[in-house]
Amino acid sequence: MHELVALIHAADDAINREDLDAVMDFYTEDATLVVRPGLNATGKAQIRKALGAIAEHSSHSLHVTQDKLIVVEGGDSALVLGRAEIRAKDPSGSDVCIEREATYVFTKSLDGVWRCAIDNSYGTSLLRA
Amino acid sequence: MHELVALIHAADDAINREDLDAVMDFYTEDATLVVRPGLNATGKAQIRKALGAIAEHSSHSLHVTQDKLIVVEGGDSALVLGRAEIRAKDPSGSDVCIEREATYVFTKSLDGVWRCAIDNSYGTSLLRA
Repeated sequence: MHELVALIHAADDAINREDLDAVMDFYTEDATLVVRPGLNATGKAQIRKALGAIAEHSSHSLHVTQDKLIVVEGGDSALVLGRAEIRAKDPSGSDVCIEREATYVFTKSLDGVWRCAIDNSYGTSLLRA
Repeated sequence: MHELVALIHAADDAINREDLDAVMDFYTEDATLVVRPGLNATGKAQIRKALGAIAEHSSHSLHVTQDKLIVVEGGDSALVLGRAEIRAKDPSGSDVCIEREATYVFTKSLDGVWRCAIDNSYGTSLLRA
């Protein structure tokens, strides 16, 4: 298994446990999370706040899995494509399941650690938003 | 216009003029081009060879345009999504037009220049290949 695939599974696991401290370790300091089309969170403080709001909005029921991940490396950058399945309860308590083709950009720091610089679970669907 | 949008339009223009020297300036030294699903070219020598083969295969008729581009920046990394239209003649001489939702990863070098580290015109369709 590619180390970035293992890393993303570990990040999903941390999200599912709602361990936001662990989740934040996966991001670079100035990473960007696409919260929804047209709304980005940039930097760890904004991302943490957005993830907290998402957890709250889904009544702490968020469960993310990715059954297929493809890694394309180019030097110290990597593009990861993932087929994500997001299960949650909406504010009314109904179960929802959303499938997305996600795109992540990772960058390798000078100490050789891969971290997520761009987390865009909407993938190229932003072109159609 | 975001500087990365201008850069991609300039790269498309260089491809359409078949000015491979100019095209190669847009890539990092160890960039990766997804030539087709399952086949990547890594490093400038391989990318140049692949682009030359694609030009040859399309009887030097390749014409790429992108009418919509979205940039998501995260520090010195950027994800660019593009709605690409690729027109060319196939080996039999017939006109073909392919539309793709492309994904590009750019990285900013220490001298402040953005270069393409990953060129994946197939976008998330690789997950379905």
